[in-house]
Amino acid sequence: SRSLNLAVIPGDGIGQEVVAQGLKVLSAVLPQDVKLETKEYDLGASRWHRTGETLPDAELEALKGHDAILLGAIGDPTVPSGVLERGLLLKLRFAFDHYVNLRPSKLFPNTATPLAGRPDIDFVVVREGTEGPYTGNGGSLRTGTPAEVATEVSLNTAYGVERVVRDAYERANSRPRKKLTLVHKNNVLVYAGHMWKNIFDRVGQEYPDVAIDYLHVDAATIFFVTQPDRFDVIVTDNLFGDILTDLAAAVTGGIGLAASANINPDRTFPSMFEPVHGSAPDIAGQGKADPTATILSVALLLRHLGFDAEAVRVEEAVAADLAGRDGTAATARTTDQIGDALAVRVAS
Amino acid sequence: SRSLNLAVIPGDGIGQEVVAQGLKVLSAVLPQDVKLETKEYDLGASRWHRTGETLPDAELEALKGHDAILLGAIGDPTVPSGVLERGLLLKLRFAFDHYVNLRPSKLFPNTATPLAGRPDIDFVVVREGTEGPYTGNGGSLRTGTPAEVATEVSLNTAYGVERVVRDAYERANSRPRKKLTLVHKNNVLVYAGHMWKNIFDRVGQEYPDVAIDYLHVDAATIFFVTQPDRFDVIVTDNLFGDILTDLAAAVTGGIGLAASANINPDRTFPSMFEPVHGSAPDIAGQGKADPTATILSVALLLRHLGFDAEAVRVEEAVAADLAGRDGTAATARTTDQIGDALAVRVAS
Ligand SMILES: CC(C)[C@H](C(=O)O)[C@@H](O)C(=O)O
Ligand SMILES: CC(C)[C@H](C(=O)O)[C@@H](O)C(=O)O
Repeated sequence: SRSLNLAVIPGDGIGQEVVAQGLKVLSAVLPQDVKLETKEYDLGASRWHRTGETLPDAELEALKGHDAILLGAIGDPTVPSGVLERGLLLKLRFAFDHYVNLRPSKLFPNTATPLAGRPDIDFVVVREGTEGPYTGNGGSLRTGTPAEVATEVSLNTAYGVERVVRDAYERANSRPRKKLTLVHKNNVLVYAGHMWKNIFDRVGQEYPDVAIDYLHVDAATIFFVTQPDRFDVIVTDNLFGDILTDLAAAVTGGIGLAASANINPDRTFPSMFEPVHGSAPDIAGQGKADPTATILSVALLLRHLGFDAEAVRVEEAVAADLAGRDGTAATARTTDQIGDALAVRVAS
Repeated sequence: SRSLNLAVIPGDGIGQEVVAQGLKVLSAVLPQDVKLETKEYDLGASRWHRTGETLPDAELEALKGHDAILLGAIGDPTVPSGVLERGLLLKLRFAFDHYVNLRPSKLFPNTATPLAGRPDIDFVVVREGTEGPYTGNGGSLRTGTPAEVATEVSLNTAYGVERVVRDAYERANSRPRKKLTLVHKNNVLVYAGHMWKNIFDRVGQEYPDVAIDYLHVDAATIFFVTQPDRFDVIVTDNLFGDILTDLAAAVTGGIGLAASANINPDRTFPSMFEPVHGSAPDIAGQGKADPTATILSVALLLRHLGFDAEAVRVEEAVAADLAGRDGTAATARTTDQIGDALAVRVAS
């Protein structure tokens, strides 16, 4: 019999609640012969307050033994900004070489969007996950004085860019529209930008069927709200991807629906699946959080582990559930009720 | 009698056309006793093709003698990306210490917006203009090889941050809503982000009437499309400001309407006024460009030089003109006709 050995990091705020629904749906959808084992890791704000630890080596080691990681949300206003993000969330993405940060955006029927005209949105952002301005390079001199100087260094390597660009071409090539857009800012960030563009153009020669396009990040934000249907697959840098995927979530029903996968395509380490949203401490523990983003992240997890049919069932269940919402229904149901409804749908 | 000694850099693409309309309106609105002198500088793509020069020292020196600079647009696909942007546009912003890059966003009545529900948008972004990832620091090692490494260094100083933050507080304090939002990404870019936040909080103690708020840049993009009416004044870093102001333009009628001012508040060098849009080579020379963004930039120029009543007249003329457009009118009229209509309005 098969098994799925899952690490679960509920994290902070609404993390616990949404992860519980993700696990509920996962259990309901998995084939009978798959033994689901989960191990919960107590990481996040309360652990840090208790012990001062963000991600001890022993736990990082233990996490390596799992098939995948399901993460809720990290971050809390009682912890200095950056401590948990860099000491835990980004540490995992970097340590496990999650170089493909995959964030699909789809405007489901009947879902609220701030955009007039309800454009047909269905694209996926391949965000680089292990380089760029996220490496923690930089520093501060004469901190806190009027003479302070602070730097942030964006590190980019041909090795790192080529592998994520190649992944994006593969994805574009396997989609009906076969279109790939590179987003950067190569008229200002000329060193990193030109390297990205050169590698993008060179690798593209191996994918003659993929139509390619380049946009500066500022211009890309315009198209996200005026012509989002022009996008199919987007590949971009870690920071630009962070910004663009929140915007993408906003125009496709909000971050309550936005899923993400931190993938290590080489499978040398477990991949990690998490909603794009944060820990939302203002609504934590009240059953108000929409677990759909986590449940859609579970679909990405299933697909990554080869459970393609099950992934489709989760996605279809979500589409059906969203189609049945009337705008008020989403807030009328509790986190738990939405999870229950989706668990019922995937099981039937 | 008074005089206004203006440097004009039409630049590339539609730059020439829109600047001509800006000058037309400027002439029409200036009081009779003000002698308008203009000197045109031939800078941009064609100059670079002819001579290889972007901004020679002699012209940089000559530009210093003017009261202000009106710029059309810089950039052309025939020139490698970055050459004109960094060698001309950014060189001017840095050499003339344009540390306040001011970009107002207002949704005029009757103007098309991609947002459903037509929220009440009226905010101004104070974008830092002389630091951050725009300093040109960084480099590339083993360029073009599989072992390439490329860096981009964001440079930030307490000196540079405090002066722009202070300017933003002054602006917020003088507006009815008195609200200031700092946008950064201090949970990841901790060195620069914490410096920005600390200075923002400290300077804020001198402005007890200003209500303050902080948003990560990714979250800010969400609010730009879901709740843009929550913003009054925004202060942010050079790159985040670049991204957010294109998005702001998109939700308030498009970059055909977005004005900007590169201000040196200390008046040690001339300030520079330019539309946010680019050179749009695809429509250049066809009379299709909307000169409104340039004309609104002329209003910012007038205000900077103390012609407050005239600035208001230009803005009111634009508001009236936009109110009269029916969605097709904007494309039905040529660049020249829109300029003429606005020149007539400001003169009457
Ligand atoms: C919490 C933060 C560090 C993180 C990021 O910036 O990547 C988040 O915004 C995301 O998009 O997953
Ligand atoms: C052309 C480019 C260098 C410029 C910038 O990035 O500042 C433009 O996008 C702008 O916003 O004025």
